Amino acid sequence: MGSLAFVKGHGTENDFVLLPDPDGALDLTPAVVRALCDRRAGIGADGVLRVVRSENAADAVAMAAEATWFMDYRNADGSLAEMCGNGIRVYARFLVDEGLEQPGVLRIATRDGVKVVRVGTAGDVTVDMGPATFPGPDEVKVRASGRTWSATSVAVGNPHAVVMVDDLDEAGRLRDAPEVEPVFPDGVNVEFVVSRGERHIALRVHERGSGETRSCGTGACAAVVAAARRDGVALPASYVVDVPGGRLEVTERADGHVELTGPAVLVARGDVLLA
Amino acid sequence: MGSLAFVKGHGTENDFVLLPDPDGALDLTPAVVRALCDRRAGIGADGVLRVVRSENAADAVAMAAEATWFMDYRNADGSLAEMCGNGIRVYARFLVDEGLEQPGVLRIATRDGVKVVRVGTAGDVTVDMGPATFPGPDEVKVRASGRTWSATSVAVGNPHAVVMVDDLDEAGRLRDAPEVEPVFPDGVNVEFVVSRGERHIALRVHERGSGETRSCGTGACAAVVAAARRDGVALPASYVVDVPGGRLEVTERADGHVELTGPAVLVARGDVLLA
Repeated sequence: MGSLAFVKGHGTENDFVLLPDPDGALDLTPAVVRALCDRRAGIGADGVLRVVRSENAADAVAMAAEATWFMDYRNADGSLAEMCGNGIRVYARFLVDEGLEQPGVLRIATRDGVKVVRVGTAGDVTVDMGPATFPGPDEVKVRASGRTWSATSVAVGNPHAVVMVDDLDEAGRLRDAPEVEPVFPDGVNVEFVVSRGERHIALRVHERGSGETRSCGTGACAAVVAAARRDGVALPASYVVDVPGGRLEVTERADGHVELTGPAVLVARGDVLLA
Repeated sequence: MGSLAFVKGHGTENDFVLLPDPDGALDLTPAVVRALCDRRAGIGADGVLRVVRSENAADAVAMAAEATWFMDYRNADGSLAEMCGNGIRVYARFLVDEGLEQPGVLRIATRDGVKVVRVGTAGDVTVDMGPATFPGPDEVKVRASGRTWSATSVAVGNPHAVVMVDDLDEAGRLRDAPEVEPVFPDGVNVEFVVSRGERHIALRVHERGSGETRSCGTGACAAVVAAARRDGVALPASYVVDVPGGRLEVTERADGHVELTGPAVLVARGDVLLA
């Protein structure tokens, strides 16, 4: 099918292929997504972000009055995805760097609704991830590397089990998914969290379906919400969160919304040659 | 340092970032190589192939009369590498597609000397990998997943231990390096080989320092040399070799040289933005 313009970017090493497609002309089949995301035979990424005007995307046309651009996010396996805290920061950086939006407060349409993002002319990008909730169950056990911990169940759009540990090595090599009891019907991401100082934590994360990853935006948010409760901190509360792929900052606002701030880096641009 | 032109390509999913640098103007530090090969924060590849005229490269100027172009190959960790059977096919495809060489028989300078490559206007590329040798030891044992096999020690530039198995699953998940006795002082690549039919084998490979990989050009050659001896085949002998990343063809010539044939695909081209 010839060649296709792309940009590659990442946020704390959660990486994406961006495809500029303002008019919605691209037929982005699962096979094309898989080919693009293949780390050896393609460009390689955790997912694809198609950059399309909301008015030109069936999934977003209802949001077009509020948000000019729609983040059409696909997982590396070709499936549709709703939202990604690292992806939307990279997406916003692209819009500003390309001159498609002015720096400032942007509203971006996603399959999880319109998201509010703050982006400057350079540097970090902040996204309002919405409120965190505690859907339960109240008693959660996580088992890995022959150890068992109690976990806090937090939802930030998707479900998380947050475990406080003394040392991130306690979780072992995390080659397999930790066992979680009770079983979450749709699976659960597991964060292992250690204190690094006042309002400063570090974490490792095992994402359902992906294994251990370099970063998870919702996981960082869930970890901070759990840590703020453990620490008895009044809201608004801001924490620095070190993830394997870099550093994020998370603020739980007084209204319960969680803001995720961190780097959004465009790495390369060019044309991909598709057979 | 601004932006840098690149092409990404692969041969049976052994992938490379090619950097056109005919005049040898590029200061390719280990840090730059690591940044380019980083699969999340960079473009991602198994290695970098700098495309430089032999006359402009200190390592190749002595070969300039015989070979116009030097394949300056670096491993993903930034270290120098001598040769790569999959890499040189991709390199040759780039030279021809860019019009830097005519299709036909090319001589390409490498740190392992001048290599002869056959490349057409499209399709597979063949490289003469030189002679295979049997440096010993004669009695080699390989252990993985609780099983032990006898192996054949074959060198194709680098050392290999070739194990014939009934089923590729016998080797288990290969998360750790197989144990090899006696110990090879510089390490050894291990191939697990199964018959798929007449002069047709399939293999899995564990490469020293890299773990299980999608393909290994010298490993495919070593496996065919071992299989041809087991099968009592007269030379020249040609085998089809299925590797996890695709299909190769290997011919052991009557003069003992081993020819490796397979795909060489250019995937994308563009500019990488370096901080």
